[in-house]
Amino acid sequence: MPKALITTVPFADKDSLPLQLLDKAGIDYLINPIGRKLKENELAELISDFDVLIAGTEPITEKVIRQAKNLRLISRVGIGLDSVNLLAAEKCGIQVSYTPDAPAPAVAELTIANMLSLLRGTHISNLMMHKKKWERIFGRRIPEVTIGIIGAGRIGGRVLRRLAAFGTPRILVNDMFPNLNVAPQLKIEWVDKKTIFKESDVISLHVPLTNITRNMIKMSEINLMKDDALLINTARGGIINESDLADALISKKIGGAAIDVFDSEPYSGPLSKIDRCLLTSHMGSMSVDCRSRMEIEATEEVVRYFSGKNLKNVVPETEYNLQSEI
Amino acid sequence: MPKALITTVPFADKDSLPLQLLDKAGIDYLINPIGRKLKENELAELISDFDVLIAGTEPITEKVIRQAKNLRLISRVGIGLDSVNLLAAEKCGIQVSYTPDAPAPAVAELTIANMLSLLRGTHISNLMMHKKKWERIFGRRIPEVTIGIIGAGRIGGRVLRRLAAFGTPRILVNDMFPNLNVAPQLKIEWVDKKTIFKESDVISLHVPLTNITRNMIKMSEINLMKDDALLINTARGGIINESDLADALISKKIGGAAIDVFDSEPYSGPLSKIDRCLLTSHMGSMSVDCRSRMEIEATEEVVRYFSGKNLKNVVPETEYNLQSEI
Repeated sequence: MPKALITTVPFADKDSLPLQLLDKAGIDYLINPIGRKLKENELAELISDFDVLIAGTEPITEKVIRQAKNLRLISRVGIGLDSVNLLAAEKCGIQVSYTPDAPAPAVAELTIANMLSLLRGTHISNLMMHKKKWERIFGRRIPEVTIGIIGAGRIGGRVLRRLAAFGTPRILVNDMFPNLNVAPQLKIEWVDKKTIFKESDVISLHVPLTNITRNMIKMSEINLMKDDALLINTARGGIINESDLADALISKKIGGAAIDVFDSEPYSGPLSKIDRCLLTSHMGSMSVDCRSRMEIEATEEVVRYFSGKNLKNVVPETEYNLQSEI
Repeated sequence: MPKALITTVPFADKDSLPLQLLDKAGIDYLINPIGRKLKENELAELISDFDVLIAGTEPITEKVIRQAKNLRLISRVGIGLDSVNLLAAEKCGIQVSYTPDAPAPAVAELTIANMLSLLRGTHISNLMMHKKKWERIFGRRIPEVTIGIIGAGRIGGRVLRRLAAFGTPRILVNDMFPNLNVAPQLKIEWVDKKTIFKESDVISLHVPLTNITRNMIKMSEINLMKDDALLINTARGGIINESDLADALISKKIGGAAIDVFDSEPYSGPLSKIDRCLLTSHMGSMSVDCRSRMEIEATEEVVRYFSGKNLKNVVPETEYNLQSEI
């Protein structure tokens, strides 16, 4: 009986269909017994016995892969591949698939939620009101500000199209491969990243974590930003240098930030002490519908694999190339 | 020299134009010396000397008006008139004007901000993360839910038009005078309030506080709602019975609430202890642009009055009628 290790949690919490699919296909499974994101060692210890991995964002490193004697397929629940050493997997003949479209609507909505909160200071007011402090905070509306989007793909594109309903802010966008039709309702200025850092009131990141994007925003970039700039990261920890961000918020070099993703999760670092930093616990894809779709798609891929069918969402060559570049 | 009392605070904080307009017109003014919303007695003591009042939401009652021997004009910075005894003002020959359009875009944006926060639990996650607790909260996206809007006028209409960018939720709307073209992009079901209470996942209020809407939502209405219903009030305190709401949140009769307006402000009541209640300090109109526009429009009305010009935004007869109904 083929055996699947499911590391991502929660799994099948709101919709049990993924487990039904595995049962029906006669695939044995184990759900992450630790109940949180696994560390490299924990995963390396668990994995040796399993044929497929239904994976979250835990580190699937060369070391882990060396322990995974039986592994044939890594099926990522989600889009990011920074956690998977694709080249090591390829070397061992392990296929990798993912669910690139499913999380996008939920991540885009969380981004808009956090953008509006930051602009109006509702997160600060809520913290104060729960301490019985009343202060009417001045905010800004979307049409009043310049919004900079870095990465206008599946998620960034959806953010742009939703923004269009709020009026006409100035929109600056940076992307390696600009899609000029990404949001026909908006007048977009395609600019370099430096222009975004210098001229935006709100900056939101929608790029993968790669060797190129790691530390994209550190103190040297923050120093270019406006005093009241607001920074949003619903993409991946590591793209913003976390300790530089904490320093910048404490010393009021920027106005605020909304951070959903961290270098190390669960997060409990210095940002937790900064009220102007809106913090959420990697909840970008955590809407009931998107999460279920991701889990179902990743599980269907596993069922396809064991029934000898073609996989539908194999990770494309370009992702492997990104990891081989330095 | 004519004398204006400015009670609303902050005033001319981000844009000094209103004070320049008063200076240029030779109008003397005093800005609220207490620095927060005045109580009835405080206003009654202050007002006797002034010819016009540039007013916030403090109670302009019959008692206050009796003390206002010189008062000729109340110019409300904002739209709500629940704080003004229009009939008492009329009896004393005091005109009342307001700024009904200026706050609407800012209130609508705050409503969407709070709706997205409630649906994704970002306010709860932020409180937890600031206590170093990590828990990935499941949320819902707008296209997954049924949204009930009570009042589809200046603000409710803007909320509806912004929602259209997020996909196609089921939309239930109640209004005394339905404008069938309020949001042509959406398929709206015009229903009675009971249907909204019973069938909505999110309920947002955009009606004035009148004798008819006071206590519109109390325990009997909450009992009709879904267990996980989310309630938003960016309109006026008093429309939802505050103590029933606190009881309902504590006993988990509903899922959560976002409350920006209160019976008595500054607020420090029992809702402050409930994490599932997102609280803001009457910040609906507090975007820099809308707040400035409100202050400028209300001040221009005062300048018009003293230069003998026709007023532009006199409160219409219908508002007086609403107050004479029981």
